[in-house]
Amino acid sequence: MKTYLDCIPCFVRQTLDAARTLELENETTSMLLRRILGLLQQLDWSLPPPVIGRDIHRAIRETTNDTDPYLRRKITDTESALKLLPEVEATIADSNDPFPTAVKFSIAGNAIDLGAKTGVDADINKTFERALTEPVDKTAVNRLEKAILNAKSVLFLADNAGEIVFDRPLLEQIGSSKVTVAVRGSPVINDATLDDAKRSGITERFRVLSNGSDTPGTWLSGCSREFVHEFESADLVIAKGQGNYESLSDQTRKIFFLFLAKCPLVSEELDVPINTYVIQATKRK
Amino acid sequence: MKTYLDCIPCFVRQTLDAARTLELENETTSMLLRRILGLLQQLDWSLPPPVIGRDIHRAIRETTNDTDPYLRRKITDTESALKLLPEVEATIADSNDPFPTAVKFSIAGNAIDLGAKTGVDADINKTFERALTEPVDKTAVNRLEKAILNAKSVLFLADNAGEIVFDRPLLEQIGSSKVTVAVRGSPVINDATLDDAKRSGITERFRVLSNGSDTPGTWLSGCSREFVHEFESADLVIAKGQGNYESLSDQTRKIFFLFLAKCPLVSEELDVPINTYVIQATKRK
Repeated sequence: MKTYLDCIPCFVRQTLDAARTLELENETTSMLLRRILGLLQQLDWSLPPPVIGRDIHRAIRETTNDTDPYLRRKITDTESALKLLPEVEATIADSNDPFPTAVKFSIAGNAIDLGAKTGVDADINKTFERALTEPVDKTAVNRLEKAILNAKSVLFLADNAGEIVFDRPLLEQIGSSKVTVAVRGSPVINDATLDDAKRSGITERFRVLSNGSDTPGTWLSGCSREFVHEFESADLVIAKGQGNYESLSDQTRKIFFLFLAKCPLVSEELDVPINTYVIQATKRK
Repeated sequence: MKTYLDCIPCFVRQTLDAARTLELENETTSMLLRRILGLLQQLDWSLPPPVIGRDIHRAIRETTNDTDPYLRRKITDTESALKLLPEVEATIADSNDPFPTAVKFSIAGNAIDLGAKTGVDADINKTFERALTEPVDKTAVNRLEKAILNAKSVLFLADNAGEIVFDRPLLEQIGSSKVTVAVRGSPVINDATLDDAKRSGITERFRVLSNGSDTPGTWLSGCSREFVHEFESADLVIAKGQGNYESLSDQTRKIFFLFLAKCPLVSEELDVPINTYVIQATKRK
């Protein structure tokens, strides 16, 4: 997905939101905003939004002199999600149809996103409640289930810390012998890194791979050679989160995107209302 | 009123909105956005928002190579408002209380604002209907009426083209012998200039004065000496529109501001909901 002109004011607003989330002083926020204005002026707007987001968050980390400014929040979200996990697992086990229910909880977890539009409900308990009642596209779920059954290897591109806990039941459904989980190479916003995967207990059960990049999405040009090889050779790729959609939607290989549509432009592209649970496959070209 | 950090992303969005209103090509819009990003990076953010708006709209006029890019729209809005005027005048004449009704129509006209937040209803017919039912602060209206009665000279700072037509009944209530209408010195957004005042029939009935400035508000440092003299010597100043409020709210002289609260920060400052009909006097210091 390309960066739309509408993304430009949104990037400036996201910077301000980030500064507020990180409780920066007004003077630091002002300095940061000026820096981002200059950065946006210079950047190539034909890149997908997460690549621009990467540069913005590099600037935020430099300005705050903090390599992982969202660390505290990531730890809290992981802990809150882990507390809910037994209940989530029990709900899935008790349901008539465990696979769609696991998919729903995985998408529900995508609400834990500190990079996207303000106003998306990031309260983990509400996230859990919503997952129980939310409708999903049954045909798409069936296609995903079939694709997983037919695949010998599945590469699962994780998204945020906390969210990755809600992915665990789906990962179990895919099976630890089949699935590899990819995380960001280093901290960016609250995206899950190897450390966050460890804190979530994911590394104990699944093979976890760093993608070698600090893009809040999956921008192959910035990923490690090892990751790109896995991406190309996996029978199936499942990509969580809007950032992964934005950076991979133009790929020709088969990918299933699972995410909560948070941005009006993404919603418009997909012709779904804001806040929809999206299960979307790349079109075969 | 100072420029808040929240105004920075809003200025970028307003630029995009302006480009869309003016139906600029994507490439021109992109060039314009880059220019505004650079401009915002350099500007002094301690100035009131309309002064920053002035510089943004100077850049828009330069980029479009058009000294009055909103001219067509200003003419249409004036014509639409003039068509409605007889009905507005009849409604006011027939009402039990002509003064508050005239005030309401004047504030209602402030919906015709192409510089403020997208989504404010700029449909002139709806504006008219809303004015009939909208509640206003009766105490404030009474104070304003008393202040007008006690004043020998009233300086009325007009806001937008089209809107100025809806000000006519209020100007008649004040009386042509007492009131001077001030308009912008040259085109900026759809703000009323001397030409727009002429097209609205205002110049035939009232003394109209240019403020000598292209700020979408009243920034005294940028106004002509003649205007500043009038501003200082008038017994009473009535200032229409949010831009005039933003640029004059810190003044110590007595001013009555009449406008529709369109911006969340202004609403917050005044502790009123968005879209409120505001009648606000400067506090005596």
